[in-house]
Amino acid sequence: MVRALTTTVLTSGAFDLIHYGHIRLLEAAKKLGGPDARLVVIVARDETVKRLKGRRPTFPEDQRRALIEALKVVDEALLGYEDMDMATVIDKVRPDIIAVGHDQDDIESMVRRVIEEKGLDTKVLRIGKFVKSDLNSSSKIKRKIVEDLKSNY
Amino acid sequence: MVRALTTTVLTSGAFDLIHYGHIRLLEAAKKLGGPDARLVVIVARDETVKRLKGRRPTFPEDQRRALIEALKVVDEALLGYEDMDMATVIDKVRPDIIAVGHDQDDIESMVRRVIEEKGLDTKVLRIGKFVKSDLNSSSKIKRKIVEDLKSNY
Repeated sequence: MVRALTTTVLTSGAFDLIHYGHIRLLEAAKKLGGPDARLVVIVARDETVKRLKGRRPTFPEDQRRALIEALKVVDEALLGYEDMDMATVIDKVRPDIIAVGHDQDDIESMVRRVIEEKGLDTKVLRIGKFVKSDLNSSSKIKRKIVEDLKSNY
Repeated sequence: MVRALTTTVLTSGAFDLIHYGHIRLLEAAKKLGGPDARLVVIVARDETVKRLKGRRPTFPEDQRRALIEALKVVDEALLGYEDMDMATVIDKVRPDIIAVGHDQDDIESMVRRVIEEKGLDTKVLRIGKFVKSDLNSSSKIKRKIVEDLKSNY
């Protein structure tokens, strides 16, 4: 009997203001696992975003998580741990591949350390920037919103 | 042979800044068509948004459409017509039900007129407000973003 092997891909982010670039990014992450991949997304907690970016996200963590899980490309979305405990996340999800974004150097180092310590064969792969647009980050979107509003006053 | 009858539900919006309230709204719209419903969403054109709201949306129409179609709850997302030609939309989609939002009085009148003129038996149903939150419209989200940014300067 032929048994389909599912490759689990794990990726993570704050996903505060969802835009088309996120979809492209998540699709690229899932593609790393081949045609039968399962995509699990860790959505950063409010406190983690506040600590890393200096301000709380516009949307609370429960809504950010639910929105990500409402996407066709996503099989499961989970809230992260406030202390970004990658070891616990990896134990829980058991990913074959961890997809790391172009701006996630810190996460990449953390993940590689956990994988080495645990002696896992999880692959860590980079995903590139997508959408040639000025609107590929929540911060840029927020700045554009402010500028657009100003120009209308 | 038993043939499953699909009920097509049509709804519409600008969907500029996607938030969890949109998901709840779209889920409620689809539910109106029963368990086998197909949800088709008309995404307003940039020019239409500009005319109705006085400013262009933050995201261009192609990205707004692609993001809506990336949602599990949505079967198909189509761009509208710049002149909001409801007759053409209804001819094309042939909906059994048109779901109208709490703030879509203009669309409701337009749709009812077309249905009457064409002698169709399409139902027009209202969907309520969802998510008890201050962040249930793109305009409110934009205001919150501006306030949040100010308070950090």
